Amino acid sequence: MTRLQGVTASSGFRAAGIAAGIKASGKEDLALVFNEGPEYEAAGVFTENKVKAAPVLWSRQVLSTGRLRAVILNSGGANACTGPGGFQDAHATAEAVAEAISGWGTETGAIEVAVCSTGLIGDRLPMDKVLAGVTEVVHEMGGGISGGTDAAHAIMTTDTVPKQSAFHHADGWNVGGMAKGAGMLAPSLATMLSVLTTDAKVTAAQLDEALRAAAAITFDRLDVDGASSTNDTVLLLSSGASEVEPTQADLNEAVRLVCDDLAAQMQADAEGVTKRVVVTVTGAASDSEALVAARTIARDSLVKTALFGSDPNWGRVLAAVGIAPIELDPDRIAVRFNGSPVCEHGMGVPGAREVDLSVTDIDLTVDLGIGSGSAWIRTTDLSHAYVEENSAYSS
Amino acid sequence: MTRLQGVTASSGFRAAGIAAGIKASGKEDLALVFNEGPEYEAAGVFTENKVKAAPVLWSRQVLSTGRLRAVILNSGGANACTGPGGFQDAHATAEAVAEAISGWGTETGAIEVAVCSTGLIGDRLPMDKVLAGVTEVVHEMGGGISGGTDAAHAIMTTDTVPKQSAFHHADGWNVGGMAKGAGMLAPSLATMLSVLTTDAKVTAAQLDEALRAAAAITFDRLDVDGASSTNDTVLLLSSGASEVEPTQADLNEAVRLVCDDLAAQMQADAEGVTKRVVVTVTGAASDSEALVAARTIARDSLVKTALFGSDPNWGRVLAAVGIAPIELDPDRIAVRFNGSPVCEHGMGVPGAREVDLSVTDIDLTVDLGIGSGSAWIRTTDLSHAYVEENSAYSS
Repeated sequence: MTRLQGVTASSGFRAAGIAAGIKASGKEDLALVFNEGPEYEAAGVFTENKVKAAPVLWSRQVLSTGRLRAVILNSGGANACTGPGGFQDAHATAEAVAEAISGWGTETGAIEVAVCSTGLIGDRLPMDKVLAGVTEVVHEMGGGISGGTDAAHAIMTTDTVPKQSAFHHADGWNVGGMAKGAGMLAPSLATMLSVLTTDAKVTAAQLDEALRAAAAITFDRLDVDGASSTNDTVLLLSSGASEVEPTQADLNEAVRLVCDDLAAQMQADAEGVTKRVVVTVTGAASDSEALVAARTIARDSLVKTALFGSDPNWGRVLAAVGIAPIELDPDRIAVRFNGSPVCEHGMGVPGAREVDLSVTDIDLTVDLGIGSGSAWIRTTDLSHAYVEENSAYSS
Repeated sequence: MTRLQGVTASSGFRAAGIAAGIKASGKEDLALVFNEGPEYEAAGVFTENKVKAAPVLWSRQVLSTGRLRAVILNSGGANACTGPGGFQDAHATAEAVAEAISGWGTETGAIEVAVCSTGLIGDRLPMDKVLAGVTEVVHEMGGGISGGTDAAHAIMTTDTVPKQSAFHHADGWNVGGMAKGAGMLAPSLATMLSVLTTDAKVTAAQLDEALRAAAAITFDRLDVDGASSTNDTVLLLSSGASEVEPTQADLNEAVRLVCDDLAAQMQADAEGVTKRVVVTVTGAASDSEALVAARTIARDSLVKTALFGSDPNWGRVLAAVGIAPIELDPDRIAVRFNGSPVCEHGMGVPGAREVDLSVTDIDLTVDLGIGSGSAWIRTTDLSHAYVEENSAYSS
């Protein structure tokens, strides 16, 4: 992954990012990803929150066709909890994009345009600025590195760096992608948005299989605070421009690699992060029980504050896993921090309190000792900066 | 509740608290509550964490008789995750208390002595200090206000004030109690310990009914961070010294009032608290679904950091309730902060962003608008002080 990164790493895609005045700060806030074809297959996965933002309702609906020409994304406002008016705004935005693209020479309908939004929940978008911005961003569209990178910048909220990735297959096809936010797909700290592209010649069903499989072990395994966004969206579009038809296995692997890289970038840039933590649970009765246990530990505020303090407080890990609704024998639990055993048979081992956790990357492994199920979750510590950023977000 | 507070508010009880050297700080760390009789009925509720501390295993076992002469409580060490040796320590402590009391003139067996511990998980207790302390604390036992208050001081860990309460019935019987910690029973920030006493003439079965009913709507409704202790214990002992036999309903109500008062004191003194928050959910499909929704909101880090920032960010409340596994119609949700409507029909109302939340007590009410179920949870904000205290706890 050393060559071109981002959504324009796949041939057949153009992108742009501009400052449309949606954000009060005047920073970039509107991005467009445009598929030049020749094919327009697409798939998507969306938040599982029952409270879904208007753009999620819109995009889920248009994706039922398995076909997309473009994705318009804005930061500076989530357009969530905005009622029927908010849904009309999402529709009007898609309509404006379709018209602008059509005027540019490619006949497009609103039903071929997905909409993604991120920012504060509850306010209507400034539609005069959004619609003026749509005209501008369509004119700005460029191929190559600049378009993709501009788009990646324009979807940032509390992100400090844009997130882009790409996989280039030796057979001449590519998968590229960008993302913003930090949190798991469905649960999310800030909203998580990601657009992935490929120039492989594949069907919407193939994209759907690859995207669901990849999201389940990448974005779904990133859990910063268990909080859940109304707007989380991941889209995968194919142009077929490479004319290469990869196997499903190769497509799955390429999409997984790009999603995994983007998830790692989101973890590293999570709000207030000072530690990158991977919680691995082994020896569970099943993989799904291991996942429940890993997620329970990763969400525990006392574990997360201890890690912020570089404190090898393994007792909190046992207390956390003890409330997971899984099969458990306290006397069989073993815990390691970065490979150093701190707890065996449910008891501390000599030197456990002296393990050095002042490093940035922490590998926390819990062996339940009762089966062969295993799973891992990426998470972060709970720091002062997390409290600072999130106590001042909307004001 | 203006008269004598605490465990010695009930006649027939003596108590003491001393510094036994278990805490490195030299502060009080060993408490005893002694029932002089003539009756010795008792009931208890314990943590639901699968990882249970040795004193919980011990006390649960001795309580199967429905009878207790004494409770010995230590701060400065949880005696959790300490294996068979830790269980032997709990047993040895009860044995030492029984011997000391017997030597003092009242024949007592270890099986009549409950043990409670709180502090860091994973270390064995300094048994030389505990056992020497047991001899001392039995000699120190006094009745009246001093004994109960000394005991309430000795069980404190990160508590800044001792928590005591009492209810005095016009018929001449009393319920008194002390508590430490903050968190719900089962989940707990630090461990929650509470000992309640009554001089009413009641059976162990009556105590058990009153205690379970009271805990379910007081300690169980206090949820600071969803974290769960290995040591949570609430005990209720009766001496029968008043010779009054109250009705079950009167007993239930008296125990509930004392538990509710202690829970409110724990909320007010929770680690890092700057806001006392009550989350009330109404209009749910059932009371149990309302409770799930209230707990989900109360545990949401983004809601809690917003409250710390006095930010009426109702969108985060909707995002939080949207992940609760309950029946929900996003378009019917209404939210009020301290009585001011901020969201109706799932959308913001004018002026919602201007609601003043700079006060200490915050009443957050969410009406789901689909049924008649309701429930509430006491919680706190998520502050810098919470992160500070919990990132430096064991070091």
